Amino acid sequence: MNLLFIIYFIIYFFIFADRNLIQNQLKNKQKSYQYMAKGLTKREENYSQWYNELVVKADLAENSAVRGSMVIKPYGYSIWEKMQGALDKMFKDTGHSNAYFPLFIPKSFFSKEASHVDGFAKECAVVTHYRLKNDGNNNIVVDPDAKLEEELIVRPTSETIIWNSYKNWIQSYRDLPLLINQWANVVRWEMRTRLFLRTAEFLWQEGHTAHATKQEAIEETEQMINVYAEFAEKWMGMPVIKGLKSENERFAGALDTYAIEALMQDGKALQAGTSHFLGQNFAKAFDVKFADKEGKLDYVWATSWGVSTRLIGALIMAHSDDLGLVLPPKLAPIQVVIVPIYKGEEQLNQISEKILPIKKNLEAKGISVKFDNRDTHKPGFKFAEYELKGVPVRIAIGPRDLENNTLEIARRDTLVKESKSQDGIEDYIENLLNDIQDNIYKKALKFRTENTYTADNYEDFKDILENKGGFILAHWDGTSETEQKIKDETKATIRCIPIDAPEENGTCIYSGKPSNKRVLFAKAY
Amino acid sequence: MNLLFIIYFIIYFFIFADRNLIQNQLKNKQKSYQYMAKGLTKREENYSQWYNELVVKADLAENSAVRGSMVIKPYGYSIWEKMQGALDKMFKDTGHSNAYFPLFIPKSFFSKEASHVDGFAKECAVVTHYRLKNDGNNNIVVDPDAKLEEELIVRPTSETIIWNSYKNWIQSYRDLPLLINQWANVVRWEMRTRLFLRTAEFLWQEGHTAHATKQEAIEETEQMINVYAEFAEKWMGMPVIKGLKSENERFAGALDTYAIEALMQDGKALQAGTSHFLGQNFAKAFDVKFADKEGKLDYVWATSWGVSTRLIGALIMAHSDDLGLVLPPKLAPIQVVIVPIYKGEEQLNQISEKILPIKKNLEAKGISVKFDNRDTHKPGFKFAEYELKGVPVRIAIGPRDLENNTLEIARRDTLVKESKSQDGIEDYIENLLNDIQDNIYKKALKFRTENTYTADNYEDFKDILENKGGFILAHWDGTSETEQKIKDETKATIRCIPIDAPEENGTCIYSGKPSNKRVLFAKAY
Repeated sequence: MNLLFIIYFIIYFFIFADRNLIQNQLKNKQKSYQYMAKGLTKREENYSQWYNELVVKADLAENSAVRGSMVIKPYGYSIWEKMQGALDKMFKDTGHSNAYFPLFIPKSFFSKEASHVDGFAKECAVVTHYRLKNDGNNNIVVDPDAKLEEELIVRPTSETIIWNSYKNWIQSYRDLPLLINQWANVVRWEMRTRLFLRTAEFLWQEGHTAHATKQEAIEETEQMINVYAEFAEKWMGMPVIKGLKSENERFAGALDTYAIEALMQDGKALQAGTSHFLGQNFAKAFDVKFADKEGKLDYVWATSWGVSTRLIGALIMAHSDDLGLVLPPKLAPIQVVIVPIYKGEEQLNQISEKILPIKKNLEAKGISVKFDNRDTHKPGFKFAEYELKGVPVRIAIGPRDLENNTLEIARRDTLVKESKSQDGIEDYIENLLNDIQDNIYKKALKFRTENTYTADNYEDFKDILENKGGFILAHWDGTSETEQKIKDETKATIRCIPIDAPEENGTCIYSGKPSNKRVLFAKAY
Repeated sequence: MNLLFIIYFIIYFFIFADRNLIQNQLKNKQKSYQYMAKGLTKREENYSQWYNELVVKADLAENSAVRGSMVIKPYGYSIWEKMQGALDKMFKDTGHSNAYFPLFIPKSFFSKEASHVDGFAKECAVVTHYRLKNDGNNNIVVDPDAKLEEELIVRPTSETIIWNSYKNWIQSYRDLPLLINQWANVVRWEMRTRLFLRTAEFLWQEGHTAHATKQEAIEETEQMINVYAEFAEKWMGMPVIKGLKSENERFAGALDTYAIEALMQDGKALQAGTSHFLGQNFAKAFDVKFADKEGKLDYVWATSWGVSTRLIGALIMAHSDDLGLVLPPKLAPIQVVIVPIYKGEEQLNQISEKILPIKKNLEAKGISVKFDNRDTHKPGFKFAEYELKGVPVRIAIGPRDLENNTLEIARRDTLVKESKSQDGIEDYIENLLNDIQDNIYKKALKFRTENTYTADNYEDFKDILENKGGFILAHWDGTSETEQKIKDETKATIRCIPIDAPEENGTCIYSGKPSNKRVLFAKAY
């Protein structure tokens, strides 16, 4: 009986203890997934669906009842506010002032620059009436007696209304340069829309500058694409390639368009900002001349440049993972979240007493900290929520930490957790945030490097597009026809002609004609 | 001959020296006017024209080519940015977050709250089409094939589109309160427009909050009118009277509207901000219910509140004078301007060497300083320009100041000039700016006190309106009929029923019926 018992015990030990061990291992393995956002599609399953779900689940934005227009929710909007703050300072540091021009543009203005109207005519929201009325049967209808003599276009971009104003502002070289930026909403009636990436209405800034010389306008155009690149890399942690657009992809009305192009995790490119050299096109369309020092009259030279809420889409797609957002600390609305782990009010009070001075010290360093002491949700729920929302650093503190003078620090980018002494934790976290900012950039840069290919013939080119995705550097003969054919056959477009690309003799992958520089191809958003 | 010469000399002395004296006196007298903006109409000649001219001459804004829409120029916009910065902080400090909702509102939404649509229907810009096309004769026309199934209203205010979103955001008491603000442009098709005061498109913020109880919503409504009053008084230096609107003047869809009312220099009132208690009107119109702790369903309680670029108009009319703007330092884009008085580059260099460290010290105190070393304009021109633009403090520095270690300090509000030692000038100026801020407020308060009357009968009431203007505290019987009759006969309206007004028995100046409180009447913008 005893022997049987012992044998039973031994068997039990080997089977069940082992099973426990396995279960524990499983548990540990699961641990890194346990806070995973419920039901978020994985990137490799369906990248597009992952993105759409993440935007909504992380409370960034949602579709509205107005076709193609989104509601930017507080958490999403606070990222936009951070972007605005950084960009606005960069614009002002380079001498620009903000102003505000009308939302509506008379149709006749809009038509003055021929290629401009061609580019935007198909996506214009048009105001035709200025009054509603009750039809007598308690239906609210448009009042047919309140028809506008001239229709008004809801601005898709403001070159025309702005240059019509500049006409009165510019007489002499003393009025130049005119360096103005506008933060505004614009409307482009897109047929296929996606939150942040392509919406009928979006928020943006549009710079519109006027210069006395061609050279100065080109320098401004280049300066602003550099500002955008710096913002993308230093603030968004997103490496970009600067270059010129081919004729097909140029802004309607521009002589040259510079763009920054970023690579998303699914291997598609995203145009994140553009800066246009407009030559004298708009000055001619609106008859804006200035007298130089000698009194000679000439048309003014122009630039325009813009980035939009699309950047939030880029930010999401560049860094986020299957658990949710990964936000670079510099743009994270909450940089550090503190989650107390406690039972009962007394323990919470002890934790609060310990952690609130640390919170205060962090805030004194300019770090935004949230102490989530809600008693309506369990720590695990909160962990998942802040992972989903991409908060860069999570601090957990429980009774054992009180005893040991420790804190559990988890970083969102690598998901690494560690126990740290409370002493000097503020400096540690400050450095950690910088580390995370750097690491996010480096990771994205590594991804881009690994997903940038060169193709020397059309077969290789198509093979890379089909099987790998990413950026492809290839020779092109410089013609719109070739570009269009490649686009029609493969859906890939020339993202830009990189500024930094070295001179290199080769032959166009499509036509075999000579080329002296590789251009950047990709499928794009 | 000698005698004649002596006599001649004596005569010369008496006549010409005296004349010189007179001329000198004249010169001194002119001195305070010498920088006067050329051609600015005086307030007492034509207050309305003075305002219109000042807005344009001070480079704040101008009319655009779009009927009723203005261009806010960089100097005007930078005042708006200062206002936004201060208000946004106050909103966030009281727990609100920013978000963004669509510009367009489907007509059907707009019609859901009956009194709301009645109030706004007559001034709605309506989008009916979404495409332009070339008609074949090179005319750009609206494409008739691109007609919207349902017309879209350009938001005149966003209650309807926001409450349609809140429907999905609010299920339980845990989702409340919802405290959201939006910075946006809105359009109201006004027939008579004036820069800043009444424009077809204007910029504003609109807060939209949702609450579990009536009491909490009322407290929010009151909190926000207090925030506005504090902003008006502490930042704009503009005393305001807080009160409730009478039924006639209430926001379309509100149960109660609180307003702040300010008195302009011409004796007319200006409504500077409103905060609305909306009851459950919009929750009912959009079916927004929440479950309380016991699981019982009820409609949500709402508020909305807003201030707009109209505040810039108020700011101008409250303080400015015949020389131009008088800006309170806290909202002045440039707080201190330094004008060097020099001949030749060497003197300018000496002055720069002396003044630039002082400029730097001032900036370290958070004071915005402009050093105007343009050689294209004379000091007198610059003095006039900064007087016109309302820069609170002007520092002039010339060769004699270099010798004497002095600076000439001129304050814009009182036009007083004094020579001060350069030692410790930074602290002096910091205090001076606070002084000016206080003085501007006190001056406006004194003006309001002197122009607030009580009238105990209709004759006195009409007499004051006719001959003095200003605020009139008078008894009213509480009926819309009486209010309307007074308005029709005198153009005066009830600006508000002041919150702070003491209980006082009396009889209505119009009907003779009993009243227990005086209300505030005035002609208004």
